[in-house]
This record gives sequence, structure tokens and C-alpha cells, in this order.
Amino acid sequence: MSEKESIGLVVFDGFETLDVFGPCEMFGLMEDKLDVTLVSRGGKPVASRQGPVASPTAALEDANAFDMILIPGGFGTRALVDDASYIDLLGRVADSVPTVLTVCTGSGLLAKTGVLDGYRATSNKFAFDWVKEMGPNVKWVNKARWVTDDKFTTSAGVSAGMDMALGVIAERYGHDRAVGVANYAEYEWHQDAAWDPFAEIYGLAENAV
Amino acid sequence: MSEKESIGLVVFDGFETLDVFGPCEMFGLMEDKLDVTLVSRGGKPVASRQGPVASPTAALEDANAFDMILIPGGFGTRALVDDASYIDLLGRVADSVPTVLTVCTGSGLLAKTGVLDGYRATSNKFAFDWVKEMGPNVKWVNKARWVTDDKFTTSAGVSAGMDMALGVIAERYGHDRAVGVANYAEYEWHQDAAWDPFAEIYGLAENAV
Repeated sequence: MSEKESIGLVVFDGFETLDVFGPCEMFGLMEDKLDVTLVSRGGKPVASRQGPVASPTAALEDANAFDMILIPGGFGTRALVDDASYIDLLGRVADSVPTVLTVCTGSGLLAKTGVLDGYRATSNKFAFDWVKEMGPNVKWVNKARWVTDDKFTTSAGVSAGMDMALGVIAERYGHDRAVGVANYAEYEWHQDAAWDPFAEIYGLAENAV
Repeated sequence: MSEKESIGLVVFDGFETLDVFGPCEMFGLMEDKLDVTLVSRGGKPVASRQGPVASPTAALEDANAFDMILIPGGFGTRALVDDASYIDLLGRVADSVPTVLTVCTGSGLLAKTGVLDGYRATSNKFAFDWVKEMGPNVKWVNKARWVTDDKFTTSAGVSAGMDMALGVIAERYGHDRAVGVANYAEYEWHQDAAWDPFAEIYGLAENAV
């Protein structure tokens, strides 16, 4: 029996490249503890917003077997929030998976399913108005690199996914392992989940929720 | 006639995920100026070291048509440096393409072709000894986030590729565009090519070359 945990990285047409592959790098460097799998509806290949094609090896329909899933953002989310069958599927998966992570507008996509209602969450700062419309009952945090509330950890835009992933690694496997991964990747990890200069750049005032 | 420039991101089995997809994110956000294409030998799908499969849409054999190419690192480089036909092919491409970028041990792979001989270059800090063996006639810079010498810009490990990519964007398309891309991606860009705390972490003394 494998003692490894598993994470499914959800992809769809128009996903933001770094939302997925930043965390993929960090989680992938925990190969002794964690198996990383790309997942899409029907297991089909998809193209990121930046063009490159990813070829998943698992179907979102089977994703409730993962210990964690990660939902990215990107312009592809704009079509998916109006795709009732996708939202229904994603909601059922997010309900059953023990730990759910989002990057960027992925929290808007997740919010649309209703599972984030009543929870504290954040998102990217460039498109936060749109994200808030997707989840009027979510307690949105304007200024945060990432926010954990119960089983949900939501991060800010694009690059924030890497900081969040290292935070998740620290939480589950120890702080030293997270530092080791960051150093291996020569990545300057922002360890403080409250660090967020981009909220100010995009004119979002700090709020208490 | 398109006025866009083009960049080919080289991938191979065992490439390091973020070496490719970090710069891919940054260059991909310059979509009005730059077309981004994944490239592999024969145009074949390859799996990154972290597992996920990428499906290139161009062949390395045709890559001399690009304005720029980017060569990543990863454990896959260890086999390729002993693959004479690959090294020959990569050397011919690197000779003819006007701008050649590397991330991490990608500079070791490129050095093996001989085209870096006599030029200043850097690499990742974790495996620098191996990289130096691949290019005894390269002027290796121990402490640098990235180094530009003539048509070659080589960067440090993994995450350094994102800083280098933003540096290349600043150089070609203006500093404001690079800042715009970094802010969009909520990425804290290290603008100083000499910034490199990881050299010290891995015990490499600053050298003058």
C-alpha cells in the first residue's frame, strides 16, 4: 500500500499556465510524499491560455479519489462558470476531496459551485470584481497571498500559487521540507500569507472578514 | 506579414517543469509581440521530471526559424549530454537562432554543444559542478540570477527563468511592459541580474570573469 498522498491539478482550455505549473513544480519536488497528476474533464488534452497543450492522465469525473485538488484560474474560467454540467461536476468533486486549493480566478470558478459559501477566501487582484460576483456569499479577503479556511486554501493571482503550495507543503510535511523545495527551485518563498503588495497596486483596501 | 517575434521553448523527457512554464507564462503574456511554441525533437510529446506531459507543436529540427529559443534544465539533461545526435542538432539550432536563453542546467546542455565556449554564463547553484564539467571553456559566473553575453542569456536555477524572462521582455519591449507582466502575474520580479542569495546557500563564492 502506498503511503503517498495524491494531488490532482485540474486543467481546462484557457487555464493560466503558471497557476498550474508553479504549484506542480513545488509539489512535484515532494515526490517521496506526493503524487502529482494532471486532470481534465474526460481526461482530454487542453491548451493553456498561453498556448501550450497539456495532456492529462486522469479524468475530473474520477477526481474524488485524490487527497487534494488544485483549481487554477485563467480566461477559461469565464466560459466554465456558465457551463452548468461542469460546475455541477466540479462542485461534487470539491465536496468530496479532503483538501481543495485554488489559484487566481480558480476561486471564482469554485465559488460558482456554492461550496465556498460562508468561508473566507481570496483570489487574484486584477479580476477580483468578477470573482466576487461568482460568490456573493463567500467572505472575500481583499489583501492576502493565500487564505486557509477549513479544507479550502485559496491563493491570489498566478505566482501566489507557488507561495501557497510551499505553505501547504510546510503544513503537511514540515517547514524544513518547504524551505528545501524553495531552495532547490531557487525560489524566494513569501512565507507570510498576509504579504500582498498587489492588493494596493490594484486599489483594493484591506478588509476584515 | 506578422510583425510578431517568435520563441521556441525546448522540452525533452525529464525537463524541469517550472524552467519552461515560468518563462512560458511571462512570454505568453506578451501575446501582442511574441508567439510562444513548445518544441521537441521530432515534435513528440514528452513528460517533465514532475510527470505532466507536454505536447509540442513544433520540431527542434525546424527550430532555426525562431527569433529566440529557450533551453531548460532538469534531470533529462543528464542523458542528453551523452546523446551525440541531440547535441549536434541542438548546437546547429543554437548557432543559427539569433537569441538563445537557458534556465538551470540548460546551460550545461548548451555548453556541451560548444557554442558557449568563451562566453560568460551562469547556471543553477545546486548542480553547478556538473554544469562546469559540460563546458570547461565557458566563463562560468558563480553568483548571478542571469547573465547576458552577446546572443546568450543564461539564468540560474528553476525560478530564475522567470526573472530572466522579464529581463528579456524589458530589454526587447520596454521596462514598463515587463513590470506590467509581473504585476499581472502578481510576481515579485527580481530586476537585478546580480541578485543571487542561492549562490551563498550552496557555498559558491563570487568570482570575477
